[in-house]
Order: sequence, then C-alpha cells, then structure tokens
Amino acid sequence: MHEKRSEIAQLGEFGLINKIKQKVSLQNSSSLLGIGDDAAVIDAGDDCVLLSTDMLLEGIHFDLSYMPLQHLGYKAVAVNLSDIAAMNGKPEQITIGLGLSNRFSVEAVELLYEGIRAACENYNVDLVGGDTTASASGLVISVSVIGRAKKEKIAYRTGAKVNEIICVTGDLGGAYMGLQVLNREKQVFLSDPSAQPDLEDHEYVVGRQLKPEARMDIIHELADLNIVPTSMIDVSDGLASEILHLSKASNVGVKLFEDKIPIDNNTFDTALEFKLDPIVIAMNGGEDYELLFTINQTDFEKVKNHPDIHFIGHTHDNANQNVLISKAGTVVPIQAQGWKHF
Amino acid sequence: MHEKRSEIAQLGEFGLINKIKQKVSLQNSSSLLGIGDDAAVIDAGDDCVLLSTDMLLEGIHFDLSYMPLQHLGYKAVAVNLSDIAAMNGKPEQITIGLGLSNRFSVEAVELLYEGIRAACENYNVDLVGGDTTASASGLVISVSVIGRAKKEKIAYRTGAKVNEIICVTGDLGGAYMGLQVLNREKQVFLSDPSAQPDLEDHEYVVGRQLKPEARMDIIHELADLNIVPTSMIDVSDGLASEILHLSKASNVGVKLFEDKIPIDNNTFDTALEFKLDPIVIAMNGGEDYELLFTINQTDFEKVKNHPDIHFIGHTHDNANQNVLISKAGTVVPIQAQGWKHF
Repeated sequence: MHEKRSEIAQLGEFGLINKIKQKVSLQNSSSLLGIGDDAAVIDAGDDCVLLSTDMLLEGIHFDLSYMPLQHLGYKAVAVNLSDIAAMNGKPEQITIGLGLSNRFSVEAVELLYEGIRAACENYNVDLVGGDTTASASGLVISVSVIGRAKKEKIAYRTGAKVNEIICVTGDLGGAYMGLQVLNREKQVFLSDPSAQPDLEDHEYVVGRQLKPEARMDIIHELADLNIVPTSMIDVSDGLASEILHLSKASNVGVKLFEDKIPIDNNTFDTALEFKLDPIVIAMNGGEDYELLFTINQTDFEKVKNHPDIHFIGHTHDNANQNVLISKAGTVVPIQAQGWKHF
Repeated sequence: MHEKRSEIAQLGEFGLINKIKQKVSLQNSSSLLGIGDDAAVIDAGDDCVLLSTDMLLEGIHFDLSYMPLQHLGYKAVAVNLSDIAAMNGKPEQITIGLGLSNRFSVEAVELLYEGIRAACENYNVDLVGGDTTASASGLVISVSVIGRAKKEKIAYRTGAKVNEIICVTGDLGGAYMGLQVLNREKQVFLSDPSAQPDLEDHEYVVGRQLKPEARMDIIHELADLNIVPTSMIDVSDGLASEILHLSKASNVGVKLFEDKIPIDNNTFDTALEFKLDPIVIAMNGGEDYELLFTINQTDFEKVKNHPDIHFIGHTHDNANQNVLISKAGTVVPIQAQGWKHF
C-alpha cells in the first residue's frame, strides 16, 4: 500500500510524538500551550483550563488476570489526575471513554465504575461524560481530565533555572517491582492453578502497582507553603526519562545523587530477590506517579523538613551533562530507558 | 468470578449509561452539566467550556479495508466536533488518544494525522495534546474536544417547549446507505480480488459515510440570524433515536411528517436498489451528523427560506405520543432502532 514502511518501534513513542508535534500549529488565541507538557493549557478568563488525555489498553497497560476491575478504574483516573498535579493544577472534571468486549457483564462494568467513582470522590473530581461502546477485542479505557490553575501558578516543564534544587516525592521503583511480583505469581498460577499467590512479603510494592495515587496532597501543601515549583513533571515512565524531559525542556543540566534517591525497603528487598539493582529500578521503573520538580533555593527552608519530599540533586548550566553521582563518587550519565510499549 | 451475570446487550448502550449516570453526583460548582447531553458544560467565567469524548474502535466503528486513513482521521475529529455544534458551541481544542498495533507503520500514522490536521484546519480547531500507545489488537482512536459558548447561547436537549418547530439540516440516511455499498463491494472483492469496486453510482452516499462534516456552518448562520435553538442534538444514531432523546429530555411530544423528511435522490435510489424502504433508512440510519433542533415559531420567518434547514414537524404537549405521519396519513409511533454495537 505504501512505498516506504518505517517501524514505529524504531522511532519510539517520543520520536513519533515529536514528528506529530512538528506539523501542528495553534490557531486559537485560547490555546496557550499545546503538545509537549503534562497537559495542554487553555485560556479561561481569570483561570486557565488544563486538559490531558490518557489511554489504557488491555494487554499493554494492564492484565486483568491480576488487576481487579475496581483497582483498574481507580488507577485509570488517578494516573490521569497526576498529569494535572504535574502542572500544579487542581483536577475538576473527567470524561471516560470505554470500549467493552462481550466478555464483560453489566456487573463487571459496575465494578470498574466503582473504582472510577471512588477515585472521583477521593480527589473531588466530577465524572461529567464519556462514550461507552463495544470493542472487538480487549478492554479500552480512555480518560480525559479538565483541571484548573491560576496562570501564574502553573508549573511547566520548561521553567527550571540553573542552581535550583531537584525534588521528588515519595519513593521510586515500587510500582515496577510490584509488576514483577504479580507477573511471577501469574506464571506460577498458570503452571499450577492450585497454587496460592504469595504476595505477603510484597504488599507495599504490589499496592504501588495496583493502586497508585496522584500526589494532590503535595500540590495542596506546596500551595499552603506558597511555593510554585519552577518546573514539574510526574514520574510515569521512570525518573531517568522524566529528569531528561525537564533538562531538555528547561535547557539546564542536572546532577542527581544516588544516595538521595528514595527507595522503600520493600522495593529494595524485592529488587534484590529478583537479582536486580535497586538503583536501576528506582531510576527506570515506571508508574510510580510521584512528582519530580525543581524549586528555587530560597524556597528550601520552607520544605526542608517535609517527610515526603526528597532533595535528590540540583540543576547546572551545562544542559548536555545529565549525570548521577554514585555512592562511590562515580559520575554516571543518565540515560532514559523508560517504558517501551512499541 | 461474579455470582450474577447480566449481559450488556440486554441492557443496551443507553440502559448502561443510565445505570452509570444514576450513581454519579457532581461536587464541583464549576460542573454545570454532567452526563446526559452532547457535551458536558463547565463554568469558565464569562463563557462556558464544553467537553465531549468519542471513541472509535476498529472492527466496530470502522473497517480499514475500505476506510482510507486520512478519511478516518478527518471523520474521527468531525464527529466529535459535531457534539460541540449540537450544544450551539464553537470547538477550539482537541486531544487525540491513539492505540496502534504493530501492523501500523510510521507512514500510516502520518496519513491518519494528515486527516486529523485537515479537519483541524477546516474547523479552526487546535490539536493540543493526546496519548500515543501500542495496542495489542486493532486501531483505537479517542478524541476529546473542548468547545466554548456563552452560557445563554447553549442549546440543551432539555429546552424544547410545546408548539415549537422541529428542524433538521441536510439530508438523512445517506451515511447508512454508503456503508451498505462499501460492505457489498468488500464482499465482492473478498470473493474475487480482481474485481474493481463499483462505486460510481453511489458517490454521494459513500462520501456521506467516509467524509462526514460537523455542521458548524449552520451554527454560524444561526448565530448570524440571532437564533438560539430551544433544544438541539446531532443525528449520530438515526433521526428516530435522536428525536426520542429530545422528546424525553424536554418532556414534550413530537409529530413528524414523512413527506418533510429530507432524503437525497442518491440515498433514495440506493435504498431501493438494496430493497430497503428509504424512509426507514432516513429514520434509523446513523452517522449523518446533521443537526436536529427546535425553534420558537417567532424565529420561523428568519429561516423559512434556508435551503439546508428542513421543517419536519412540531412539538406538542403529550410527551408519550411521538409519531410519524406517513404520506398516506397513517399515524406511526416512532421507535428507536439506532445503532446496536453491543
């Protein structure tokens, strides 16, 4: 059909997005920011409206053999709200597009919506619309979210300056290790259906995979402290990938310190059990949905004792030098592995 | 897994949506209207923001064996903009969620985006974001659109009063007959791959299926004439289904006249060729994306000579009596067949 055929896998997700972005121009004066950040920014009088869309596909983003439908509904909403948090905005409305194959019963759809509603209640977000349709194959969930922020409070990926402090919330790598545990238990179950899942020692990491939260608590706390991050992104594809996005968008270099990267004990132990290096997992494991942001040094005093914000490095003026300083003092260039769906 | 299993097919799409809607309540004061119209309405200062989402799935909504990718991209955008038109609003931004299986090349994605961009340019809408991911099976396209309208100009499904004039734009049933022609040619091709498609006598109906337009032209003309429809909906599932939505939402009865229902000659002839009754096709064929609306009688003078607005009946005070008066004068109750994906 076409003379030339280039594989998407070769170009990669970000390469494909760049290709699309290059040909897109904005016509409406209300379109303040288009493709390239966690959410689009649209002028709406005093406030700005933030808009983001995520798509979750069965067999790619989730496996129903270990993902309960309520958790899936909750997660589909939470990960999308995380994009609004990453703009320093407050999510207010969502729409849900749902493609359902005939193996789903009405009761199954109700379980899914139980999770969706639980997330809506938890984050004070309204489900205002959507589209429900049949699917010829697996389950498809598309969530769009509308958020709101004052124009001067929005945190873009582009705003980091040199000599700022790089912060990350919570801990990293847990969701990835949870996925490894769930995959292992699935294989055990497939070879011996009478086997009971052994998740006892892995509750924390499994919870990180099955029930991630958008860090709206941090957004509210930063607002209370009168801190506007100079740049921000959420950690969906892994710390390495996200910090390189910030570096590139802001045109600053970053230096991270291995001993400052927050890793939960359960994540650490599970990584060793799987013969994986915990720091590699923390740098490259996806789906943690923590917030990665930069603050001006003058704001440090206000947050220095915050139990859930970690100061993992700083920016500098060489945008091509993005490095991790290991515990032994070695300088390691940061490379994005991220998620490769294609 | 579940004790009780109810099939979605039995409940139907609208039954399922009602079930979901019943359990949803709105918390944010900015959520002016949630599920139940063509788009959600969100407070945004002087204006309102309108939000709508549509999902198109391969094997359900389109068949790539006769749907060129550019057309598909164009159609995915146009049908979503039609939801904003149906609120009497102006679309301004869209996001695209795309699930791609590995049989799609970069070139194929570029063709799809050519169509998406063509629609954006034609309707002066900005592509501001989205999500691109792998798909384990077919092509998935999810479009969300943000539109804008002054609060007092929004046309809801609920606003029709008794003794108002029911209007429909363009002509009906063409997209459905186009689909029949394309399906027939596909069967011919499958049994004899050397056969050339015979679409010559069916250009109009095939065009209606492959390249529908959102009737933004009508929205602009109504604004110029200073007419705000008292109620409005777009014809995506067939006239019968849509007029019953208006009747129910507005709590008025409707009387339509068969001889007033606009049917293009090509649609009429193609229906006869397929041994189908043209009026049944016009009443129940989906995907025309024309606008169905009611106006106050005082506005009739302003539009009575409009070449593309047809006056097909009127509302009355018996909400349970929704009828079509046949050419022979018979009173036929209107029943929704609509699209049954499930």
